[in-house]
Amino acid sequence: MLQTEILLVAGTHGNETNAPWLFDELAKSPKILNRCGLTVSTVIGNPLARAKGIRYIDRDLNRSFSSKLLSSVSSQNDYEINRARELINLFGHGSKNPVPVVLDFHSTTSAMGSCIVVYGRRSPDLALAGLIQNRLNLPIYLHEGDNSQTGFLVEKWPCGLVIEIGPVPQGILRQEIIKQNMIVLEVCFNELAKVKSGESIFPKTIVVHKHLKSLDFPRDSSGKINAYLHQDIDCKDWFPIKKGHNLFNNFNGSQLQLSDDDLPDDLVPVFINESAYLEKGIAMSLTTKEKWAFKKNWAQSLISLMTK
Amino acid sequence: MLQTEILLVAGTHGNETNAPWLFDELAKSPKILNRCGLTVSTVIGNPLARAKGIRYIDRDLNRSFSSKLLSSVSSQNDYEINRARELINLFGHGSKNPVPVVLDFHSTTSAMGSCIVVYGRRSPDLALAGLIQNRLNLPIYLHEGDNSQTGFLVEKWPCGLVIEIGPVPQGILRQEIIKQNMIVLEVCFNELAKVKSGESIFPKTIVVHKHLKSLDFPRDSSGKINAYLHQDIDCKDWFPIKKGHNLFNNFNGSQLQLSDDDLPDDLVPVFINESAYLEKGIAMSLTTKEKWAFKKNWAQSLISLMTK
Repeated sequence: MLQTEILLVAGTHGNETNAPWLFDELAKSPKILNRCGLTVSTVIGNPLARAKGIRYIDRDLNRSFSSKLLSSVSSQNDYEINRARELINLFGHGSKNPVPVVLDFHSTTSAMGSCIVVYGRRSPDLALAGLIQNRLNLPIYLHEGDNSQTGFLVEKWPCGLVIEIGPVPQGILRQEIIKQNMIVLEVCFNELAKVKSGESIFPKTIVVHKHLKSLDFPRDSSGKINAYLHQDIDCKDWFPIKKGHNLFNNFNGSQLQLSDDDLPDDLVPVFINESAYLEKGIAMSLTTKEKWAFKKNWAQSLISLMTK
Repeated sequence: MLQTEILLVAGTHGNETNAPWLFDELAKSPKILNRCGLTVSTVIGNPLARAKGIRYIDRDLNRSFSSKLLSSVSSQNDYEINRARELINLFGHGSKNPVPVVLDFHSTTSAMGSCIVVYGRRSPDLALAGLIQNRLNLPIYLHEGDNSQTGFLVEKWPCGLVIEIGPVPQGILRQEIIKQNMIVLEVCFNELAKVKSGESIFPKTIVVHKHLKSLDFPRDSSGKINAYLHQDIDCKDWFPIKKGHNLFNNFNGSQLQLSDDDLPDDLVPVFINESAYLEKGIAMSLTTKEKWAFKKNWAQSLISLMTK
């Protein structure tokens, strides 16, 4: 029997404060955590960065789980790579407590509400994302085909989703964000308990927003950002746009429009003005919305993980 | 004749991004900066913290201007204290370019809109704050009598105001915040130009929100925050409250009300849920609203500074 069936991670970024606060409170109430009959553990992803109120010490922990970084010899003094190794040693494949399902709770400054992020098209991820979407109608952001962003925490576990909840500035507690975390958490518990007991009703379709590319801010010759998001796009995550849509304003009043010919006609922007993505050169990401038939083998893969 | 009549400071906190961005753009357009006939300089308060996207390196620069810290021998390697000394050497009393008026532009995660902060009751500060309030009807937050928060930048210049603009998360650019910065800036330029040319019309009264005390979050025995702001108070800066008003919610649903007997009946909360104040143990500050007669010597003190 599994020691821990669900691992809840929060504070993977030390300046995201709401989910870690909630998990601290939940840790005082094991009855709530385990009331669906599942064994649940919580862990703070980046405790040192959290204590300092900063996002990370040496590098983004949620980009530190690539095999290349984990096996790198030159990273012995890198706090986040060592923390990634530690989390895998505690809860990963081959550990004493190998956890099948990881839920990593994040917050965003983008006006995205709550959403589910899946990395690639792993069957158990899509099954669980479909179950949550079926209950809460949350959008699923499918992050794939982006070589500039790799090494996400949840990818090191057999099933793992990121839950993103916003909008909220970094560093503050806000009631509606804490409550949204709790709502998604309870649905995850209920749905995974039903998977374990064989009572799940899987949806017939899922709707995904498939990552196409990220757009940087316009920059001057020295690399400095020289335009801000246009009011027609800022805070309008999930609203469809077409080529020609206003994206940026310069200080002198000139505007920049979406003009990429390689993109499909209908696009859905996400992670618009996420504070932490400035350093990554991301003003927003563009997705395309697709409806997929739900595959039986997705369900089967999640069931077999939860009934080991 | 003065080399610089107005010093504009932004990025005193490295993670406040809008005013520094605006000042970079303005620096490319000296015509805009100097169009009122005043000589204006801009400076980034904390360039190293800004480059790193963090609030400060060693300590809050905007608490580093106390005489005690500035004269401290043990602070030779403290980046912010050295930077404070440097700014004073460049633009302070006794420098080659002693500036009479400093405007320090900040942003806040609190839902405060735009406001003017004055530290203590210095005549030129109250005169300039009154002129701006008379034009834009902005609230004036009078910070005084708070021994736990001292050493503000503007206090080292003969006349100095902080302009706070929000709400905006740290680290992002937002059009409405940039535009609010520009609106306040232009009014400051116009009003100071009129002071210099003797055309000012000073108001008969000013309205101030006088600082009374700050309230911390409730904490458990280990010092951890164990409650979040109640929906009746969060994002409700400037809305009057009375004793008994709901302040905080515990995870278990219990509520905490305002119950301080030493406070007056009518209170106005400000800086509610300012992200950076978490480390200072401030969930909000309480003020009382007062209307004062505008004193002639305030005007005279500002006029004499601007007509040296």
